[in-house]
Amino acid sequence: MVNPASQYESGATRLEHDLLGEREVPAEYYYGVQTLRALENFNISGVTLNFYPDLIDALAMVKQAAAEANHELGLLEPTIKDAIIKACTEITNGKFHNQFVVDMIQGGAGTSTNMNANEVIANRALEHLGYSKGEYQYCHPLNHVNMSQSTNDAYPTAVKIALINSNKKLVRVLESLIESFRAKAKEFAHVIKMGRTQLQDAVPMTLGQEFEAYAVTLSEEVERLNQNVRLFLEVNMGATAIGTGINSDPDYPEKVIKHLRKISGLDLVLASNLVEATQDTGAFVMYSSAVKRLAVKLSKISNDLRLLSSGPRTGLNEINLPPMQPGSSIMPGKVNPVIPEVVNQIAFKVIGNDLTVTLAAEGGQLELNVFEPVIVQSLFESIEMLKNGMNTLKYRCIDGITANEERCRSMVHNSIGLVTALNPYIGYEASTQLAKEALVTNKSVYDLVLQKGLLSKQQLDTILAPENMVKPRKLNL
Amino acid sequence: MVNPASQYESGATRLEHDLLGEREVPAEYYYGVQTLRALENFNISGVTLNFYPDLIDALAMVKQAAAEANHELGLLEPTIKDAIIKACTEITNGKFHNQFVVDMIQGGAGTSTNMNANEVIANRALEHLGYSKGEYQYCHPLNHVNMSQSTNDAYPTAVKIALINSNKKLVRVLESLIESFRAKAKEFAHVIKMGRTQLQDAVPMTLGQEFEAYAVTLSEEVERLNQNVRLFLEVNMGATAIGTGINSDPDYPEKVIKHLRKISGLDLVLASNLVEATQDTGAFVMYSSAVKRLAVKLSKISNDLRLLSSGPRTGLNEINLPPMQPGSSIMPGKVNPVIPEVVNQIAFKVIGNDLTVTLAAEGGQLELNVFEPVIVQSLFESIEMLKNGMNTLKYRCIDGITANEERCRSMVHNSIGLVTALNPYIGYEASTQLAKEALVTNKSVYDLVLQKGLLSKQQLDTILAPENMVKPRKLNL
Amino acid sequence: MVNPASQYESGATRLEHDLLGEREVPAEYYYGVQTLRALENFNISGVTLNFYPDLIDALAMVKQAAAEANHELGLLEPTIKDAIIKACTEITNGKFHNQFVVDMIQGGAGTSTNMNANEVIANRALEHLGYSKGEYQYCHPLNHVNMSQSTNDAYPTAVKIALINSNKKLVRVLESLIESFRAKAKEFAHVIKMGRTQLQDAVPMTLGQEFEAYAVTLSEEVERLNQNVRLFLEVNMGATAIGTGINSDPDYPEKVIKHLRKISGLDLVLASNLVEATQDTGAFVMYSSAVKRLAVKLSKISNDLRLLSSGPRTGLNEINLPPMQPGSSIMPGKVNPVIPEVVNQIAFKVIGNDLTVTLAAEGGQLELNVFEPVIVQSLFESIEMLKNGMNTLKYRCIDGITANEERCRSMVHNSIGLVTALNPYIGYEASTQLAKEALVTNKSVYDLVLQKGLLSKQQLDTILAPENMVKPRKLNL
Amino acid sequence: MVNPASQYESGATRLEHDLLGEREVPAEYYYGVQTLRALENFNISGVTLNFYPDLIDALAMVKQAAAEANHELGLLEPTIKDAIIKACTEITNGKFHNQFVVDMIQGGAGTSTNMNANEVIANRALEHLGYSKGEYQYCHPLNHVNMSQSTNDAYPTAVKIALINSNKKLVRVLESLIESFRAKAKEFAHVIKMGRTQLQDAVPMTLGQEFEAYAVTLSEEVERLNQNVRLFLEVNMGATAIGTGINSDPDYPEKVIKHLRKISGLDLVLASNLVEATQDTGAFVMYSSAVKRLAVKLSKISNDLRLLSSGPRTGLNEINLPPMQPGSSIMPGKVNPVIPEVVNQIAFKVIGNDLTVTLAAEGGQLELNVFEPVIVQSLFESIEMLKNGMNTLKYRCIDGITANEERCRSMVHNSIGLVTALNPYIGYEASTQLAKEALVTNKSVYDLVLQKGLLSKQQLDTILAPENMVKPRKLNL
Repeated sequence: MVNPASQYESGATRLEHDLLGEREVPAEYYYGVQTLRALENFNISGVTLNFYPDLIDALAMVKQAAAEANHELGLLEPTIKDAIIKACTEITNGKFHNQFVVDMIQGGAGTSTNMNANEVIANRALEHLGYSKGEYQYCHPLNHVNMSQSTNDAYPTAVKIALINSNKKLVRVLESLIESFRAKAKEFAHVIKMGRTQLQDAVPMTLGQEFEAYAVTLSEEVERLNQNVRLFLEVNMGATAIGTGINSDPDYPEKVIKHLRKISGLDLVLASNLVEATQDTGAFVMYSSAVKRLAVKLSKISNDLRLLSSGPRTGLNEINLPPMQPGSSIMPGKVNPVIPEVVNQIAFKVIGNDLTVTLAAEGGQLELNVFEPVIVQSLFESIEMLKNGMNTLKYRCIDGITANEERCRSMVHNSIGLVTALNPYIGYEASTQLAKEALVTNKSVYDLVLQKGLLSKQQLDTILAPENMVKPRKLNL
Repeated sequence: MVNPASQYESGATRLEHDLLGEREVPAEYYYGVQTLRALENFNISGVTLNFYPDLIDALAMVKQAAAEANHELGLLEPTIKDAIIKACTEITNGKFHNQFVVDMIQGGAGTSTNMNANEVIANRALEHLGYSKGEYQYCHPLNHVNMSQSTNDAYPTAVKIALINSNKKLVRVLESLIESFRAKAKEFAHVIKMGRTQLQDAVPMTLGQEFEAYAVTLSEEVERLNQNVRLFLEVNMGATAIGTGINSDPDYPEKVIKHLRKISGLDLVLASNLVEATQDTGAFVMYSSAVKRLAVKLSKISNDLRLLSSGPRTGLNEINLPPMQPGSSIMPGKVNPVIPEVVNQIAFKVIGNDLTVTLAAEGGQLELNVFEPVIVQSLFESIEMLKNGMNTLKYRCIDGITANEERCRSMVHNSIGLVTALNPYIGYEASTQLAKEALVTNKSVYDLVLQKGLLSKQQLDTILAPENMVKPRKLNL
Repeated sequence: MVNPASQYESGATRLEHDLLGEREVPAEYYYGVQTLRALENFNISGVTLNFYPDLIDALAMVKQAAAEANHELGLLEPTIKDAIIKACTEITNGKFHNQFVVDMIQGGAGTSTNMNANEVIANRALEHLGYSKGEYQYCHPLNHVNMSQSTNDAYPTAVKIALINSNKKLVRVLESLIESFRAKAKEFAHVIKMGRTQLQDAVPMTLGQEFEAYAVTLSEEVERLNQNVRLFLEVNMGATAIGTGINSDPDYPEKVIKHLRKISGLDLVLASNLVEATQDTGAFVMYSSAVKRLAVKLSKISNDLRLLSSGPRTGLNEINLPPMQPGSSIMPGKVNPVIPEVVNQIAFKVIGNDLTVTLAAEGGQLELNVFEPVIVQSLFESIEMLKNGMNTLKYRCIDGITANEERCRSMVHNSIGLVTALNPYIGYEASTQLAKEALVTNKSVYDLVLQKGLLSKQQLDTILAPENMVKPRKLNL
Repeated sequence: MVNPASQYESGATRLEHDLLGEREVPAEYYYGVQTLRALENFNISGVTLNFYPDLIDALAMVKQAAAEANHELGLLEPTIKDAIIKACTEITNGKFHNQFVVDMIQGGAGTSTNMNANEVIANRALEHLGYSKGEYQYCHPLNHVNMSQSTNDAYPTAVKIALINSNKKLVRVLESLIESFRAKAKEFAHVIKMGRTQLQDAVPMTLGQEFEAYAVTLSEEVERLNQNVRLFLEVNMGATAIGTGINSDPDYPEKVIKHLRKISGLDLVLASNLVEATQDTGAFVMYSSAVKRLAVKLSKISNDLRLLSSGPRTGLNEINLPPMQPGSSIMPGKVNPVIPEVVNQIAFKVIGNDLTVTLAAEGGQLELNVFEPVIVQSLFESIEMLKNGMNTLKYRCIDGITANEERCRSMVHNSIGLVTALNPYIGYEASTQLAKEALVTNKSVYDLVLQKGLLSKQQLDTILAPENMVKPRKLNL
């Protein structure tokens, strides 16, 4: 993976140093020595921070809020504050994203991500202040940009804001998919078909009811995602290193939260116990579970779509998925349900990612969970894939589904499952006998009832009228 | 596993029949032919319904509510209704539980469980009516006890009621464990110790803060369990086979829910879309996630307890767990943290069970998820193990923990992590130099600061006073 | 769960003591104070050692081999050795199994299991020596029965022997199931049907080929299980506490392995590095993976069986599973594929258990993995369930499957997938056109080819002869 | 993600068509209409085929072998064969990789990947033949390049070859890491330290033994990976659509395998049952398990490294990891074990990916598993991350580890665990008393033994000599 900033390289460098010593940093880079080290240390997944703009924006919001709070507390000079805020605003406006180059999967509990942000903001602020990059005596990544913060509060807070914003987009795509299911439910409201339980003929329903159920079940996911994402509203700014708030002003938390609420537009609150909030990753586990549940449901629906469209001649063949590509390099004319198939696979990735989140959460030790970066990477990856998958499902599958109405209706007429409707009138045991006889003789239930004189034709027609079988009704004929 | 009813066996039998033919049923058994077949078909796990009394009680409640509703609708004669209710009440009072013999893991989407309940209740009702077991013409397992129901509504409804009641017990045990952590938090409020992030010396805190964080983090689990268990309040009575309500009276759902609310004492509501509610297992996925999250947290806490009590001479040795058993068959005097160790293992089982639930949920097809039984078994097993584990953890570990106060304090004094507290006064870079020098020279930070004249002794004593380091404070000295 | 030994209780007790103090032990119990403590500490799963006789037998084998080796090294007196061996032999002959009462899930890395064995054997040996239970000065659970051992070598060695023996039984059941599939493959060799890929009509095959594939794919599991179980042949006797062999004679490992090979009849070998062998649980991870793979395949086959038997009127309906129980409490005559359904659920449990094994393996620390008990419990549970499930699948499903030959054949004739067979003769593009036209006009491929004069009737009949389509052939007509 | 081929775009197009209709394809693209459709359908993960050159190479090998075999069978003209082979050779030489643009995660069971290869090779062959891209009448993606193949045999065969080749690289990195552990084992052979079981002081060992165990345990992974990768040697060329070999010459399989062995240099064999081989994904499940086991071991080792290097003042502090970056944005001088931390996280991803593979394998239906693409993507991703992680671990951590020899030794002298060594001389019970007294009085075991006159100083010095405690020995003094 090419370093996205490499195109800017001129050859000139500046000298920076940290705990481990000095390093030349290409002059054009806004990031500095610590980001450089992170690039060398973590060449892992090729997926860098700038894959997820929501995260970069949220980091800038956190830094901006901290600068405002520190200034209010008299800890940060107005000019430096202004420069920092200007830099942060540029970032949330989409600038300098290519300077966020650290691998999403990293050791150090997010320190490299935090330092990447601190360095870019400090160097950009320096430019606003009229200095050159690297003149940290005027605006320092740690002393100024990271003031009153630790990675252990700034990083998870930014992550949570980013996830809240990413969730909004996820929900929007989900709602749009639900609309498609609902539209099909209306379109298919009159299509009578056999319901199946355990893949065996059960009782009649409409294809509209089937698609309505998909819309309803996915609507519940909107609720669950929105309910569980609220856990991210609780943040731990002011916790500093381990939640005791060492080196922070007692008034800082309240102030920084106030600014962060304003900047982010989110109803953020301070966690009631910062020691707990700093070590706990429970909110990620819970939200990941909700994301997984969405994946489980999408997979189930995709399985159903593939079943219902199986055929064309030797399957259920109740519906047709729109053909998206030739299905086979050997079988001419074959068209496959490739869109549901890819949604299934996305679901499998998301379920795998949920396990990764669980493992990482379980691995936390004492005052910190150092494995947050892989939690974060897994959640963003899942959200991204689900958005792509649901958009694809909507536009390339659901919207183009058609029903084989005749086929559906004829299967109802032919079905032995009709005896269930007779149950209240002739009893379970007589119905059972009827079903057995129909099966053995290959006759229709309708004919057998008449032949045996169990009910009059009129009664039978009333009972077996499709519109009567797909909902409750009074039993008296 | 011995059939728990076998002790009653006399040799006499009665003849029953079903769709597949006739079978002799031992006269003493309250269950009948379909339960017999289930016993033969599902000899899988050895874990039978009567391992989980909450589930048996809930089945009886559902049957009782259905009888009441059917009677109100004029579908069930008063005498039969009364007999059914009497039988159900006996069951919820703990009687006949040994007649619930079917394996928790079964094919058929719970039909065997439902039929086990139907048969036991019918036969007991027959006795109340003055008939013999098996005289189903007077009270039939299907025609009367199962009236207006399907396994596909009665079974999941009973399961949900049972899980709500089991969750109450789980939460009670959890709250009791939290109390123990909270008591220790108070007891250890004055014990100053080093906090650790990434297993490296960080900054000071109190042991009380450490235990308080455990109490707080587990309190969140009370909230999550109670929030997610509410999903079970939505039930699908009246859905019958696939949610279309075939064969049920339009007024039945409202009536049966009314009675079920009264009988169970729970705020049950009817699902708004019964087709969806009948096929969806999302509530189980979500609740299982909450149960898993509790397990993840208990595992993390257990890991911490084992770390903090590591030693006695070559570990952290900050706390002592009460000795519960000799630790080794070869190393005399060794005492191991066996209680946290078993809690870790319970957590691993619960996480495994959550995966089982996920797999089963994903496997649902069309109008039903036939894999509910393994979901149910996994959830009840997890709840049971967690209850046992948390009780054990409370009484055999947490309540007896003692602190090695001197050891904790001396590690703070000796730590290089103290430089963090100096950061706001001498800057990040000077602090860094100090830390490096302390490490190399093996000197204390305190001595080095004085030696270099960086701060006065009075300043230093104020900054490094433990009570000042474990919370935020104004930076002016 | 009732303590299985409680029936022997008389009220008399003997006094025992350990590191933690004294305890009264009921006089009839062969186990002693440490087992008693374990019973109190680990009331977790209700699943005790005596659920798994293979494990108890293996513990006795290990103790016997150690006694032999210690005697050869001059460390154990002949009379004590003889008494220990006599006790061990009784156990492997099935006696005293009810004295193995400890919960399978326990803290302490198996110490309680090891002590349960040590105590039962010591007390039984004492009786053989003419002493009373508890007179440990004559034969001590630790000094004599556990001589030259640690839990950390004796316990995993016993577990591995037990798993090798359990695997043999698992493989036997699996091979028996394979036979059934193979028999059906022969029976259905002449039944021509459509193969399906992606649930879409593909090309013809025989039902025999379909069942033969199941037999073949499961045969691979025999190989994998047997290959991976061989990892258990490597044991760490002589490792004692951490693999350094402290307190054991340098000649002990060779001698104890020699005896253990003879007693167990297994080709056991000593691990080349005992420190590694004592902390590593990799063999369990690998074997669990093989067990999981079997579960995955059984689940896939069960899914297929449920698909192929779907119907009777609105599904694929190619085969009939033998009816095992009435399928519904509301739908008369419905018969469900309950046996494959329960096999699916077993598979989900096994996959969940494999995750538990993975989690436990990952949690090992330094010189030992303390989580072996939950690994052991999970593996034995999975093996037991798979044995039960495969036996059920064989006798209650596969052996009774019948084919709907006419239905299968007519779907072939009707299928558009036949065009694939024409591909080499008329080209991919012409075939594609043909397929599209057949789909739109609802005509048969056969008729269309003739109508268009693309091939002669004789050519066509040759190409589309079923026996020609289900295998490779020379393309010249 | 930018389409990597977009840089070549000129504006000119050619017209292609397939089953679904016509499409303009940019004239510069070597891929054609079906790849275009796949790009539109599968915009999922951003990870395209050209991320994994081994896979592209393997696709070219398969196409080359098929062309050779078809030519030998007289089915493919020499000039076309030569052109195809020339194109394939260019690809295995690294050319045209940017034309492999399809998302790794795709519906259609790999059809899009196969068609991407077919189209690129056909168009490049056309150029070699002197034609323009798109003049498929002279060399057709399906009729010529894909001749005698189906996606269902060509794709998995290519994947297996690619995985075998990727595994070689993985093993090479692993072996190199093992070398580093082994070098450290030698370097630390003389460093005596306390072993720990269950995080409690156990008995002495050397730090060299500890690192040797890591080398040994990882060496087993070389064996497991190489053993399990051999399952990929069995391929299903000639299976065509479902394993019946429809449309292929009976002699084709033997010939194509012969050529493929030669081209790939691998001992490939034809699967004995092609129907089974075409639907089964068991080899992926098994190999994924081996990859997971490697991850589990790396995670355990990383946990140990973090434990052993914990400190510097309040942890175990037995070893020092080389500092790689400043550890904290708030705690000056803090250096964290960032490299093991990132390896842990890679392990969590790999374990998650293994679950994805399991889910996908379980989801196969009837004659095909359509979810192979996500299996393939997950395996390649895991391999890539593990290679990166192990390289990082070797060069940025293991090679630079140093031991705190004095610290290690003093913990041994101070430890109560020494009593274990006295066990054979003074008995388990006396040793236990000694241990208890040492713990309570805070005295050393050595002093207590002398004080009580239990052993002479000379005896004691011999028994407790470190070199005597870290291996078995004869018990006579």
